[in-house]
Amino acid sequence: MGINDTIAAVSTPRGKGGIAVIRISGGRSAEIADKVFLTAGGKSVSDYPARRALYGSIHRPDGEELDRGILIFFKAPASYTGEDMVEISCHGGVYVTRAVLGAVFEAGAVPAAAGEFTRRAFLSGKMTLTEAEAVGTLLDADTEEKMLLASSAVRGKLSEKLSEITDMLRGAMSALYALIDYPEEELNTDGEISLEEAMDSTLSEIRALLSTYKRGKAVADGVKCVICGKPNAGKSSLYNLMSGEQSAIVTDIAGTTRDILKERVSFGGVTLELFDTAGLRETDDVVESIGVRRAEEAMSAAELIIAVFDSLLPLTEEEKKMIDSYPQCAKIAVLNKQDLDGEMSGEDLALIEKSHDITVKMSCINTDVNSHNTSIDELACAVGRLYDEGACVLGQDAVIWEARHEASLRRAEEYLAEARAAALFGGPADAVCSLCESALSELCGTDGRGVTEDIVSEIFSKFCVGK
Amino acid sequence: MGINDTIAAVSTPRGKGGIAVIRISGGRSAEIADKVFLTAGGKSVSDYPARRALYGSIHRPDGEELDRGILIFFKAPASYTGEDMVEISCHGGVYVTRAVLGAVFEAGAVPAAAGEFTRRAFLSGKMTLTEAEAVGTLLDADTEEKMLLASSAVRGKLSEKLSEITDMLRGAMSALYALIDYPEEELNTDGEISLEEAMDSTLSEIRALLSTYKRGKAVADGVKCVICGKPNAGKSSLYNLMSGEQSAIVTDIAGTTRDILKERVSFGGVTLELFDTAGLRETDDVVESIGVRRAEEAMSAAELIIAVFDSLLPLTEEEKKMIDSYPQCAKIAVLNKQDLDGEMSGEDLALIEKSHDITVKMSCINTDVNSHNTSIDELACAVGRLYDEGACVLGQDAVIWEARHEASLRRAEEYLAEARAAALFGGPADAVCSLCESALSELCGTDGRGVTEDIVSEIFSKFCVGK
Repeated sequence: MGINDTIAAVSTPRGKGGIAVIRISGGRSAEIADKVFLTAGGKSVSDYPARRALYGSIHRPDGEELDRGILIFFKAPASYTGEDMVEISCHGGVYVTRAVLGAVFEAGAVPAAAGEFTRRAFLSGKMTLTEAEAVGTLLDADTEEKMLLASSAVRGKLSEKLSEITDMLRGAMSALYALIDYPEEELNTDGEISLEEAMDSTLSEIRALLSTYKRGKAVADGVKCVICGKPNAGKSSLYNLMSGEQSAIVTDIAGTTRDILKERVSFGGVTLELFDTAGLRETDDVVESIGVRRAEEAMSAAELIIAVFDSLLPLTEEEKKMIDSYPQCAKIAVLNKQDLDGEMSGEDLALIEKSHDITVKMSCINTDVNSHNTSIDELACAVGRLYDEGACVLGQDAVIWEARHEASLRRAEEYLAEARAAALFGGPADAVCSLCESALSELCGTDGRGVTEDIVSEIFSKFCVGK
Repeated sequence: MGINDTIAAVSTPRGKGGIAVIRISGGRSAEIADKVFLTAGGKSVSDYPARRALYGSIHRPDGEELDRGILIFFKAPASYTGEDMVEISCHGGVYVTRAVLGAVFEAGAVPAAAGEFTRRAFLSGKMTLTEAEAVGTLLDADTEEKMLLASSAVRGKLSEKLSEITDMLRGAMSALYALIDYPEEELNTDGEISLEEAMDSTLSEIRALLSTYKRGKAVADGVKCVICGKPNAGKSSLYNLMSGEQSAIVTDIAGTTRDILKERVSFGGVTLELFDTAGLRETDDVVESIGVRRAEEAMSAAELIIAVFDSLLPLTEEEKKMIDSYPQCAKIAVLNKQDLDGEMSGEDLALIEKSHDITVKMSCINTDVNSHNTSIDELACAVGRLYDEGACVLGQDAVIWEARHEASLRRAEEYLAEARAAALFGGPADAVCSLCESALSELCGTDGRGVTEDIVSEIFSKFCVGK
């Protein structure tokens, strides 16, 4: 498909609804619209003022009427893609939507590839690459945090920050160019300090942005979080508390949970892919032993382990084995049953605190829906502390969440740190300058300037069709 | 909820898509829009020309920005509902869509009930009741036929026909009124003939419309069609041929099919809810015997039975038992394996022809996808003959498909037939007139004039929210 083709797709979700919107973009949009849409006034679509909602009849190019609806013509460049665009709203039935799209194809449009509209918007300069990527993340958003993260980036928060950093680096570089061009002229001391200062503050801005990655990624992709522990420690009670639902069956009987339960929850300011697992123990019960094996598998793939301990009882051999087998990941210990009398030995407590990043005392009592268990808030804070290095406010601050952003900012940081060191130790100005240029190119690439076609294709292939 | 409330809902289908549309309808639409939408120009929504696509920022009433999108204001009465309306297009993510709708509620809109927009369109006289009902059917359409049926009714085909019939009846009635008002004046013979003629032609129009019900219902609701027969008769081959897919496993082994397979297919101009069943026989196989029991249950609930017979073999006792146990429904016999040599006895053939509405000779050979089995066309014609009493062309002719339409037209027909008989045998003019008035009231009610609130509520409760 060439960029000169006029593309079309259903842009609203699949399935039955009140209305559906078919989008057309490209030079032939108005011509195609005229072949499938008869305005109530009978005139051609482009004879009306652009951006006006026109009522009319939707038909196949051969004349068979399919539906009636609304058409809006957006004249380039004032459209989403920056090209001529047409949006047709028809009745939202599955079949009628398909029929209208079919008519648009018959009239000369070609099917839009995944993300093709947004890709064209990027290529025509209507949005930066991080803005376009954020559109994809916004469509996927299933939590408040993810929506805020993506929505502020769609509105340009991240692009603004990147362009601010780029400007700072350019400022530092112009001083460097002066040094190279007029090496005989002594730069005044003020100027020299300001070059280093400019490099320092650029570096610290890049590092500040990089520090948001952990949180951004945890919000956008979610963290695989496995709740584990020995039977009856209170794992399922905790799972229900964290997910805010009574989805796991809770009883006093050890070995109640056997299947792995899974829920995507917003917790502590990040998104957790939460897994409840069977209690770890040797057992003769066939189903339970399968459950234990699956629990061990889930643990080995965890990004965050929340281990639940019964604070009334000494650590068992199996619990010690569990601690020994932790994979490389973040770990929180929950000392449960604080509402009951009893105490763990100092030795056990020390081992637990040593083996986990954070230890939280809790009572995972299965309270009813209306009363709030406050000890869960403490756990939420603990999770938040683990991920919120940048202490960023979602929806307000610039945040990165894509591996691509992190990788190119990391490279920019390395180049610039090297340049900074070279400048400090009196390295040749052109070497410093060349390192700065590499850093600049990485910064620009983060927002799509000078990136390769391959990278662009990969980014948009993850989109849905119609956006 | 009162009619004075301003309602809002997501009108596009649930789920992830490129864009979603939130609809607001009622007197406060523009005021609510101003609370959640900041136009790029900064002016109030109603300061721009109506029906113009305005770009701007979507935010909570407290100011938190959620997304950017397009807003269109439709000024009453030039809108879908006939009231002031606002449509906001935002990014089609599940969470962001929910957040925008939430903001609209915060700003004072109330959640729309199922079908509330279309109900308001009906109440404000923007559409007739059959047009409104057709909107619901169009949204449900899952076949070409159902789409054509509903789409032409949405565009007013059925309403036009009803209003034509109503006008004919009114014409007849004006002659009657003259007779009542001026009984002393002899109506001229021409006039009298024309009164009876007018009643006759009205009756024949009503009957013509009633004759479309069988087809309309079969297209809109679908016909529960059960394929049955003894093991290895070729049921699954036929099922695959009819559904156009190789979904049922076909082997030479009797008893291959055990579970009931189900598929919704467009066949012979109607919609079939097609069931493939286990072959009927006594068996020791536990799974198969459950399958046989389910096959018998499916048969007893069938609206159309297609019984497959092996034309090479004499009828078995079990086949005769099957024929005896047929419920009251339409029945087609398929004499399969016509491609092989062999013949059924005349006696068996006579029994089959007597027990079925239509008998079709076929070869349900499992041809590959690319070659077409022509004997299937014959079966399609047979199905079509069973349902197409009115010989109507979907998408062009007026067709009824709702039980409500059929019931009120049937009553109108009865009143009018009685009036016609009374007139013919010299009954008193005011009795004839009263019968005609009852017929007229039924005709008007079909399209929503004078129907009760209960009927209207029931019709729209079947709609989805957002339409």
